[in-house]
Amino acid sequence: MYDVAIKKGLCYINGEFKALNVGIEGDKIAYIGKDNISGDIEIDGTSKLVMPGLFNAHTHLAMTLFRGFAEDMPLMDWLKTKIWRAERLLTSNDVYWGSMLGIMEMIKTGTTCFSDLYIYMDKVAQACGESGIRAVLCYGMADRGDSERAKKELKIGEEFIKKWDGAYEGRIKAVFGPHAPYTCSLEFLRDIRNRADEIKTGIHIHISETKEEVENFTKIHSKPPVEKLDEINFLKSDTVIAHGVWLTDVELKILAKRGVSVAHNPVSNLKLASGIARVTEMVKKGINVCLGTDGAASNNTYNLFEEIKLTSLLQKVKTGKADALHARDVLEMATKNGYSAYGIDGGELKEGGLADIILLNRKSFNFIPLYNPLYAIVYSSMGCEVTHTIVGGKILMEERNLLTIDEQKVMERMERIKEKFRSD
Amino acid sequence: MYDVAIKKGLCYINGEFKALNVGIEGDKIAYIGKDNISGDIEIDGTSKLVMPGLFNAHTHLAMTLFRGFAEDMPLMDWLKTKIWRAERLLTSNDVYWGSMLGIMEMIKTGTTCFSDLYIYMDKVAQACGESGIRAVLCYGMADRGDSERAKKELKIGEEFIKKWDGAYEGRIKAVFGPHAPYTCSLEFLRDIRNRADEIKTGIHIHISETKEEVENFTKIHSKPPVEKLDEINFLKSDTVIAHGVWLTDVELKILAKRGVSVAHNPVSNLKLASGIARVTEMVKKGINVCLGTDGAASNNTYNLFEEIKLTSLLQKVKTGKADALHARDVLEMATKNGYSAYGIDGGELKEGGLADIILLNRKSFNFIPLYNPLYAIVYSSMGCEVTHTIVGGKILMEERNLLTIDEQKVMERMERIKEKFRSD
Repeated sequence: MYDVAIKKGLCYINGEFKALNVGIEGDKIAYIGKDNISGDIEIDGTSKLVMPGLFNAHTHLAMTLFRGFAEDMPLMDWLKTKIWRAERLLTSNDVYWGSMLGIMEMIKTGTTCFSDLYIYMDKVAQACGESGIRAVLCYGMADRGDSERAKKELKIGEEFIKKWDGAYEGRIKAVFGPHAPYTCSLEFLRDIRNRADEIKTGIHIHISETKEEVENFTKIHSKPPVEKLDEINFLKSDTVIAHGVWLTDVELKILAKRGVSVAHNPVSNLKLASGIARVTEMVKKGINVCLGTDGAASNNTYNLFEEIKLTSLLQKVKTGKADALHARDVLEMATKNGYSAYGIDGGELKEGGLADIILLNRKSFNFIPLYNPLYAIVYSSMGCEVTHTIVGGKILMEERNLLTIDEQKVMERMERIKEKFRSD
Repeated sequence: MYDVAIKKGLCYINGEFKALNVGIEGDKIAYIGKDNISGDIEIDGTSKLVMPGLFNAHTHLAMTLFRGFAEDMPLMDWLKTKIWRAERLLTSNDVYWGSMLGIMEMIKTGTTCFSDLYIYMDKVAQACGESGIRAVLCYGMADRGDSERAKKELKIGEEFIKKWDGAYEGRIKAVFGPHAPYTCSLEFLRDIRNRADEIKTGIHIHISETKEEVENFTKIHSKPPVEKLDEINFLKSDTVIAHGVWLTDVELKILAKRGVSVAHNPVSNLKLASGIARVTEMVKKGINVCLGTDGAASNNTYNLFEEIKLTSLLQKVKTGKADALHARDVLEMATKNGYSAYGIDGGELKEGGLADIILLNRKSFNFIPLYNPLYAIVYSSMGCEVTHTIVGGKILMEERNLLTIDEQKVMERMERIKEKFRSD
């Protein structure tokens, strides 16, 4: 008798879908196989696809607050007259509700874990705790060359880790979040790396998002960011760099050698006109690539199925080869690779792994005819085919009903909060 | 008393959303305004966005049959060993069910009219008739340099027009569909143009989809396709060219001058590694750009909301400008521009225009907070927010329930039919 038994679903294992039963005990997958099993809770999987939950490897969750706030403006104009102005009005209460809406959207579209870098992170952690989702959280630090500020920032970052790492039955992992090499001095980054080694935590950072940023950095330091950061031994296998759009061949080699993961954000990279990352080459070089949505202001959704399809499509057109990546590789970027980037034992259906699992309706019109569920998920999903979202063995969504979040309340709060940001 | 009254919805008019009432009489919009109205059928619009239905300007509908059939293969290998082989097994019955599934998907994702080029078109027309959707249909013709075949093809194409143009209360418009300049001789294209002028019909054709195809054509004819076709006076304002990925500046000028419309298919152009069309420049030059999904084998969905978002995103990265296109322009490509490309008086909420209207749930989590519904639709839609689809005043979907199609039956038939195509 398992805590939860998912019966007769088509389960994604080793790149293929097979009709199997899944037994969950506590927060782990205890059994996968053909035996008839029973559970305190039983889920009929006969019309479902069962797969690992998605991992959103780079986001700024509470930016749901600025979803559709201002669009189609030149980047600096948009940041200066809209986003930064609005962010100055942010309170911790806003971040709590903005995060809750983001979590709602993630659970509804099959994401079971996400990695967030923002401010008022205590409130993000609280929202994760209450909603039941899993997360890697960090306080976004920047010193902008000010050594006093560096000390203060590192202190806040470290206190956040001490307070939250392992919280909520281990669902929260806390790491360091230096913003980027153009907002953090090399001295600061070196201190962060040393401290990360001492307290044994990871690092989540933006690198090489825009061409301009890389050119400016290279002018100052005579080397592009990844080369320079490697010089100070910043890059290790506990490091996840977000974006990586403008990496050189040498930089790709360094990332592969150091075991650094890249969080690829295709929608955001198009929306902010940043560019198309060299994902096919990263994969060929053995770099662990995972997928993220970035913040809602530059996306505007947290629906990782969009990133899955777009990752595949963009690499086809970028390389000129329709077989640039296989659907299987891309699905792993969205699942296993995200978990593995942050050192969490999930993202696969396997006995002993975390029970972060989603179910999809395989009778959805856009999946028909169902030649191969893998292709249906990668190329046909809208996101709303997800019927169940399970995190650490706990059912957070059942037949599209959220069990841990009051949807109406969250949406009403957000509609009220948004009024203060309006500038038109 | 109207036939249908949509009350208190937020209606998209002239680029903005306003709370208005919409009255429908017969197949037309009879009233839009603030007056209290009533109808035989009344739809409560208080939590809805009301907008013109989407126009899918280029597709091969029945290719739902090959959705996810084979993926991630080099193009010629995919065509030769998979798609063409499977298409040889196609029967008219398959095309009927494949079309019905495609129509189902379109109605569910807010498309009210589409333009189709395929074979067994009688069956496509029948599916349109029964389902209630509006369509521009043509038999896909190719002579491959054989003048006897040209005659036969033109005859089939013309008979199709005579039989179906204006059918089903005018919901079917039939036009000529020469496949492409690389499969149709110039003589054949000239004959088609002459006949189109005589019987006063339009033309739907593939042009400049791949670089290779354009290079081959240019080698033979010493000019790229659009220049050459203009030489034989083929291009007029009744002409819609699908793709147009590799057009030169001179060709863009010709298209603008002749009033030719371009059906842009961003997902398909990425998936087949064709390229990214110069849509921003087309718009600047005054070309009428509309949006299409292409066939399901190269997409794999008929969800036009994906094309809307991707059109905007791709132009931002292609031009390097986050303000390349405005959300309003892109939404018009997906609505008004499609209708206008094919000379049908729809795609706008205006009195006297066709009542092809969709309603969306504006309380959907991904639309919250709702600063501006225009941005919600263009950047946040998944497609499943559509609650009602109305074509020619007739409600085809009500709160996501299809009223004219037996969904289960269509899906079951497709699952049975697919078995004969399987090659693995």
